[in-house]
Amino acid sequence: MTLQEDYDTLLQKNKKAIIYQMIQAQLGWDFETYMPSKGGQQRSMQFATLAADIHKLMTDPTIGELLNSIKNDTNYYSLTEAQKRNLFLIEKEYNKQTKIPADLVKEIAKHQVVAIETWKKAKAEKNYELFKPELKKALDLQKQRAHYLDPNKHPYDVLLDIYEPNMTSAMITDLFNELKEGLVPLIKKIRSAPNQPDTSFLSRNCPTPIQEKLAIDLSNVVHYDLDRGRIDTTEHPFTTGYYQDVRITTHYYENEFDNALFSTMHEAGHAIYEQNLDEEFMYQPLGQASSLGIHESQSRFFENIIGRSPEFWEYYLPRFKELTGDIFEDIDNEKFLHAINHVKPSKIRVTADEVTYSLHVIIRFEIERDLSEGKVTVDELPLIWNQKYKEYLGVDIEDDSEGVMQDTHWAAGLFGYFPTYALGNIYNAHQFHVIRKELPNYDELVRTGNLKPILEWLTKKVHKPASLYDPADLMQQITNEPINTKYFIEYCIKKYSQLYGF
Amino acid sequence: MTLQEDYDTLLQKNKKAIIYQMIQAQLGWDFETYMPSKGGQQRSMQFATLAADIHKLMTDPTIGELLNSIKNDTNYYSLTEAQKRNLFLIEKEYNKQTKIPADLVKEIAKHQVVAIETWKKAKAEKNYELFKPELKKALDLQKQRAHYLDPNKHPYDVLLDIYEPNMTSAMITDLFNELKEGLVPLIKKIRSAPNQPDTSFLSRNCPTPIQEKLAIDLSNVVHYDLDRGRIDTTEHPFTTGYYQDVRITTHYYENEFDNALFSTMHEAGHAIYEQNLDEEFMYQPLGQASSLGIHESQSRFFENIIGRSPEFWEYYLPRFKELTGDIFEDIDNEKFLHAINHVKPSKIRVTADEVTYSLHVIIRFEIERDLSEGKVTVDELPLIWNQKYKEYLGVDIEDDSEGVMQDTHWAAGLFGYFPTYALGNIYNAHQFHVIRKELPNYDELVRTGNLKPILEWLTKKVHKPASLYDPADLMQQITNEPINTKYFIEYCIKKYSQLYGF
Repeated sequence: MTLQEDYDTLLQKNKKAIIYQMIQAQLGWDFETYMPSKGGQQRSMQFATLAADIHKLMTDPTIGELLNSIKNDTNYYSLTEAQKRNLFLIEKEYNKQTKIPADLVKEIAKHQVVAIETWKKAKAEKNYELFKPELKKALDLQKQRAHYLDPNKHPYDVLLDIYEPNMTSAMITDLFNELKEGLVPLIKKIRSAPNQPDTSFLSRNCPTPIQEKLAIDLSNVVHYDLDRGRIDTTEHPFTTGYYQDVRITTHYYENEFDNALFSTMHEAGHAIYEQNLDEEFMYQPLGQASSLGIHESQSRFFENIIGRSPEFWEYYLPRFKELTGDIFEDIDNEKFLHAINHVKPSKIRVTADEVTYSLHVIIRFEIERDLSEGKVTVDELPLIWNQKYKEYLGVDIEDDSEGVMQDTHWAAGLFGYFPTYALGNIYNAHQFHVIRKELPNYDELVRTGNLKPILEWLTKKVHKPASLYDPADLMQQITNEPINTKYFIEYCIKKYSQLYGF
Repeated sequence: MTLQEDYDTLLQKNKKAIIYQMIQAQLGWDFETYMPSKGGQQRSMQFATLAADIHKLMTDPTIGELLNSIKNDTNYYSLTEAQKRNLFLIEKEYNKQTKIPADLVKEIAKHQVVAIETWKKAKAEKNYELFKPELKKALDLQKQRAHYLDPNKHPYDVLLDIYEPNMTSAMITDLFNELKEGLVPLIKKIRSAPNQPDTSFLSRNCPTPIQEKLAIDLSNVVHYDLDRGRIDTTEHPFTTGYYQDVRITTHYYENEFDNALFSTMHEAGHAIYEQNLDEEFMYQPLGQASSLGIHESQSRFFENIIGRSPEFWEYYLPRFKELTGDIFEDIDNEKFLHAINHVKPSKIRVTADEVTYSLHVIIRFEIERDLSEGKVTVDELPLIWNQKYKEYLGVDIEDDSEGVMQDTHWAAGLFGYFPTYALGNIYNAHQFHVIRKELPNYDELVRTGNLKPILEWLTKKVHKPASLYDPADLMQQITNEPINTKYFIEYCIKKYSQLYGF
């Protein structure tokens, strides 16, 4: 076969795996939304069959042979950069899939089920001791996995790379230390500012049908294309799908309209990323989103940078009031904006505000890193967790269910995943800094609800390049400087000093 | 490998294909219900990939080798009847899949798309000439397909066997001739009876939310398990799924409440069949429904035999009135029952009543049969169609869109499919005859809404045996006599002479 034929064969094989993953995602969506309550066992069987076949497709020895043949071809230099990137990504994934012994893969899958079940029980009973052995084992299995993937790298760096390619523990430590230094004093200032918001109107009853209309209207405003998407409800909101069919979910609480409103903006941000990938690279490795952190940068761009900005509400509050009838007619712009930007250190990550959120993530990162390096043990976790919450957020944790056991991630073996949440904020504040330079009328665009040019900028700079670069390189391309936290901290200081008047 | 190992390997291979078919059905359900409008192209790609893989699984030469090895094993006699039946069904399917050249399979698939598109256009334009060449080709391709499947049998018998195993053109001709002889004069009597129903209340406005409640309530009454099913809406109602997850759809028309009501009963009947298959034979060939005709016997059992009976409405009308508020409070039992059993010869099959329906099917069967045998040509179809409608139903067809082009089946290449619709009526009237003998309190059970014993009878006699027998043999097992039309004709005469008073 010629070089081109080898390349095409390889891409075709990869495409098939991607199609199966799309099918898997579709079945997963149905599982979370409309599947009958007793359909689980049958669905598990479908998932297991697909997973086994995807694994088989991805570990097909022909992939290794084709990669070798291509790399040794005298015409290799004639490939485009995009083609080389595809080959790099295929090889990386192939190594990831083939280097881990099948027995370990099975053990991890089996233990995940047990650990999540135990975590649920332990959390309900506020009994960390029950969860501890399973957490220990989950960590141990992930360390083994990391060792197989790359015995020469530190295990935590190997795990980080799965979720945020090429990002290291050392880089994140530096970024997060800067963030802490900037945010901890800012939060103290905010908390002691005299100008605290009145948030009472947020709990006024807002019927679900009105909230549904709001969700659709907001989707249209931010150009989340509902002809290629849809909004359903699940307990925990999520986004799933690819390009022509990207669906989001939300959850309507009648006495917390802001919950669905911002979760819709957040998930729409994720969906917009997937909907605006480059058609040219569809179903290719480089046509997949760059990383979880970059994904989060897009969701939080729409949720926070746009969605909680004074400019946006200058445009949207009248429309919001029109859609909600007389419920909020007495609320003015200033009052609304301050309430939706209420900063309040709390124990729970998922409901945290824009400023304190990163600290929740930093705590988890520091613990994960130190656990992986053996500097702390699973036994000490509750103590360390509670100390850090006191130190960074000034919050007292009363029991481990609202402390170290609040998230499912560790039970699921997801070590290295948490940092991506805060990286999203760092990335998008930096994108925001550049976009304002490159679109000098940015504020005016938002104030008039004309988000199209902003979407086009994000599409050109972030969505279309997709996986052409690792996240740090992509950010360098966009911003012309290395990733840093300066812009996020500056953004927070400017925004919140105005809101809280200090 | 031992005989048992060979057998297990074979069943395991087959199970995988069944799981993929379940996934295919799930994606099909989503396609019809919730898929975003622009998700079609991506979904097609998923369908094509799955279809190719299912075909590969089903034509795997190992299947042929395993079948041979098992048949030549000296211990073959030690297999159970059920195991032998599985082997028979696997071999039959394997032959069906492998005997047709890949080129013909592709040509049929390709032509189907063209023919359906052309049919839609021709139907909209009332232009049969446009559709004619595609119809000719569709028929020709199916004849070729039949020839490859079995060159020694008449092509139409080969096609019939796909939808109704082992049923022949000669058998159906006899049954349908009897049916015609019984029904044509009956319809004349009904039409000339002085006691015609007042159907005007059927078009009273009945809001969708009320109809939705009715659909759920009726599902519960007939024991369609909504923990393993659900009801959504599509233009054309259908049932899809298997055992733990069997979903139905309906369509709510606010001025035609009876439409959704009886379509729900109909589809619930299909769903009940799938939900009550034998757990022992799950994911095996013999754990699949017996045939389309037997399937239709179950849907029409719930729609007509129960759902349009005086006994059922004696029980359900008070409940119906409770759920519909004051909309129908002035309608008494007799008036209601007569209206929902209104017999009126019409041009359109899908909206036909219980008595005239079979004649619509018989017309299509006679045309298909004569086409396959070369006794009529595609050029003559409109003329023959219109003559038969006049002769059997006394109806004048004004244009071919409401005549020979009304159904999509022929465009889709489905020759041999139509007869199963009328066979369903013949089968279930016969089941009804036996069930009343074996459950002497049948009428009382229906009158009190206690359908459980009836469901159990159907489950034992029809659902659980599933594909253990071909339909004619299954009916023989249930009724102890060969299939005949006597019971359906008697049932119609008794019911309608009472309703129309002759």
